[in-house]
Amino acid sequence: MSIKKIPGGTITTPKGFKASGLYCGIKAKSRKPDLALVVSDVPAVSAGMFTRNRLKAWPVLHSMQMIRKSEKHRAIIANSGNANCINGPRGKVAVQSVVKSLSENAGIPEKQILICSTGIIGLRLPVLKITRAMPRLVKRLSARGGHRAAQGILTTDTRTKEIGIAFSVGRTEVRMGAIAKGVGMVHPNMATMLNFITTDCAIARPLLFRALRAAVSKTFNMMSIDNDLSTNDTVFILANGRAGNSRLTSPDDKYWRFEEALVYAATQMAKQLIKDGEGATKFCEIVVSGAKNQGDAERAARNIANSMLFKTMLVGADPNWGRIAAAVGASGIAFKPEQLSIAFNGIRLLSHGKYLVSARPDVKKVLKHNEFRIDVVIGEGHHSATFFTCDLTKGYVHINAAYST
Amino acid sequence: MSIKKIPGGTITTPKGFKASGLYCGIKAKSRKPDLALVVSDVPAVSAGMFTRNRLKAWPVLHSMQMIRKSEKHRAIIANSGNANCINGPRGKVAVQSVVKSLSENAGIPEKQILICSTGIIGLRLPVLKITRAMPRLVKRLSARGGHRAAQGILTTDTRTKEIGIAFSVGRTEVRMGAIAKGVGMVHPNMATMLNFITTDCAIARPLLFRALRAAVSKTFNMMSIDNDLSTNDTVFILANGRAGNSRLTSPDDKYWRFEEALVYAATQMAKQLIKDGEGATKFCEIVVSGAKNQGDAERAARNIANSMLFKTMLVGADPNWGRIAAAVGASGIAFKPEQLSIAFNGIRLLSHGKYLVSARPDVKKVLKHNEFRIDVVIGEGHHSATFFTCDLTKGYVHINAAYST
Repeated sequence: MSIKKIPGGTITTPKGFKASGLYCGIKAKSRKPDLALVVSDVPAVSAGMFTRNRLKAWPVLHSMQMIRKSEKHRAIIANSGNANCINGPRGKVAVQSVVKSLSENAGIPEKQILICSTGIIGLRLPVLKITRAMPRLVKRLSARGGHRAAQGILTTDTRTKEIGIAFSVGRTEVRMGAIAKGVGMVHPNMATMLNFITTDCAIARPLLFRALRAAVSKTFNMMSIDNDLSTNDTVFILANGRAGNSRLTSPDDKYWRFEEALVYAATQMAKQLIKDGEGATKFCEIVVSGAKNQGDAERAARNIANSMLFKTMLVGADPNWGRIAAAVGASGIAFKPEQLSIAFNGIRLLSHGKYLVSARPDVKKVLKHNEFRIDVVIGEGHHSATFFTCDLTKGYVHINAAYST
Repeated sequence: MSIKKIPGGTITTPKGFKASGLYCGIKAKSRKPDLALVVSDVPAVSAGMFTRNRLKAWPVLHSMQMIRKSEKHRAIIANSGNANCINGPRGKVAVQSVVKSLSENAGIPEKQILICSTGIIGLRLPVLKITRAMPRLVKRLSARGGHRAAQGILTTDTRTKEIGIAFSVGRTEVRMGAIAKGVGMVHPNMATMLNFITTDCAIARPLLFRALRAAVSKTFNMMSIDNDLSTNDTVFILANGRAGNSRLTSPDDKYWRFEEALVYAATQMAKQLIKDGEGATKFCEIVVSGAKNQGDAERAARNIANSMLFKTMLVGADPNWGRIAAAVGASGIAFKPEQLSIAFNGIRLLSHGKYLVSARPDVKKVLKHNEFRIDVVIGEGHHSATFFTCDLTKGYVHINAAYST
């Protein structure tokens, strides 16, 4: 299948989506955009996935309910700078006020509105600042507003994360766009990954959920900057059907094209997120293969990616394969050391349990790149998993140790 | 119960134990002691616990077998600088050669010898260096040799970890001693925590195992520097009965005194280990209480202790309680945010879900100490767990990123 990346593509790339973003007064120190709005011209089939943290922010609890209550949604509103989390029952009222304000200003039924927050935990959400800005936010909605919306959801991110792609479903060209913010936490208690995806594909809701689950399980659930799970993580997809394709209703070839495109878009967003990880200087794709089952493959990959020793090793560009082997062992999966192989960009340093010292200089060169792939072959079966991670640098410690409150 | 800490106490503090340590040539760069030996005058009842990493070093596999094969042991021999792990079948032969050499030189049956290694993974163990030094190592055995043995097992540790205590079992004074090395990994692929404990208490083997399991589950399994599980972690206890107490054979009051003393000694060792953690500048005791069950309490405490955001927060001395709350939530245990309380050295910053901003300056002062306690009250039950951890500093990253191979 051919997926075409659209230059300057963003969340408003699919037909029938408008967006806007502005500064409403929450991020008073930086005065950067702190409010974002994405609206579909028509009610769009929706799917959402949320943090598995038992501690969920108010907007997460609200949006979960809305996703259950209504099959279609028209708007996603998000603020940055304040997580609206663990701040007492007022936080719940705040969500309702923001939703009501958007509903009145944009003429969108409340149940068709999804909401997110990201920022500091424990503080009261400044509702008035948001509602006062609402008329402007709605007025500025535009098919060229994707980039502004992408700015409005950022916290410690150093750049926006955006993508727009085109692909065909049958003979119809379908588009997909996305914006995201990363898991950085410069400001104390700041958290969250947000991913908003739009598409003009016509698709039945169960299939949209299925595709989203598949994409998330392969991408956002398989990446790690610091292994901390936010209270506000949210992924939304809105499919408004404006491309005019015949609606996808069964898991046939056409559906698979859609799922493949969604996985592609999500992978690109995951890479953008990791590359902008706090203090990160290197992007690493860990591919564990030859595992006895899928769970083993994922467990091993996750354990390597989250090992602090592995992540600091990437900084030093020293091929300490022992740390990788130890992380696989610590994951608890069954394997034999004499079958384990580890390669860096295809160069084997450990081959069936044998350390190939002569490959060391070449592997050192690989590790000096900003982006590389590490293959770990278990030798117990044929299952594999891919995990994205970055290095653990002094920059990360510096950012997160800063006492800026 | 009164437990008396003996000044200068070490592994040779209990009656009937001798030890020695020397440099045999493995740590050729630093020329620091790299070999240690602990011997009981008479066969001692033994217990051991080993790493749960699926990848186990050769000496671990050998010692596990010896612990099964024989109820009593007389000697523990350990080298530092080389982990004897993932280095092919020669590693197994190396273990046998070292054991044979010690057996011949000290007149101890091979099956009464336990063995450990710690250091670089993947390299061949220089057996000849060890066996050539064996006569000297045995000759130097002395009741004052504990400190030398403590030096012989160190890798990246900046100081030895030793303790000696006395307590009474019935009317008999019993002694216990220990040495340990930490989980630092300066040198690439270097790993491992070793803990050797001796006592002159007379105790039946099942009770010795029971006490060891209790102590390890409360101490060495509840501490974290970087959450990486070594291939070589080992804890041994030898009880030679030389104190002359009537042998402990049932879990009565006298046994409980023994267990309590062992927990105390292990706690002290755990603290020494954490305080010497790589790059660590702060020691933090995390006490989770009010959990619905023991598993929940431990899960929550562990998740906080291993959160990179929490650990970097300790560096900056900024009381970001949101990171603690988020880590509890991420642990997956059931709790209600409005019941959660968090205190620093007894000063509540979050009380039943309410953020007490006024306590912030005092809590900041607490976090500037080198050692403090954080209480997290879940409010769902009456179970509690304690976890020891340290901060994540630029020093840690620096040490582990160094490409010194």
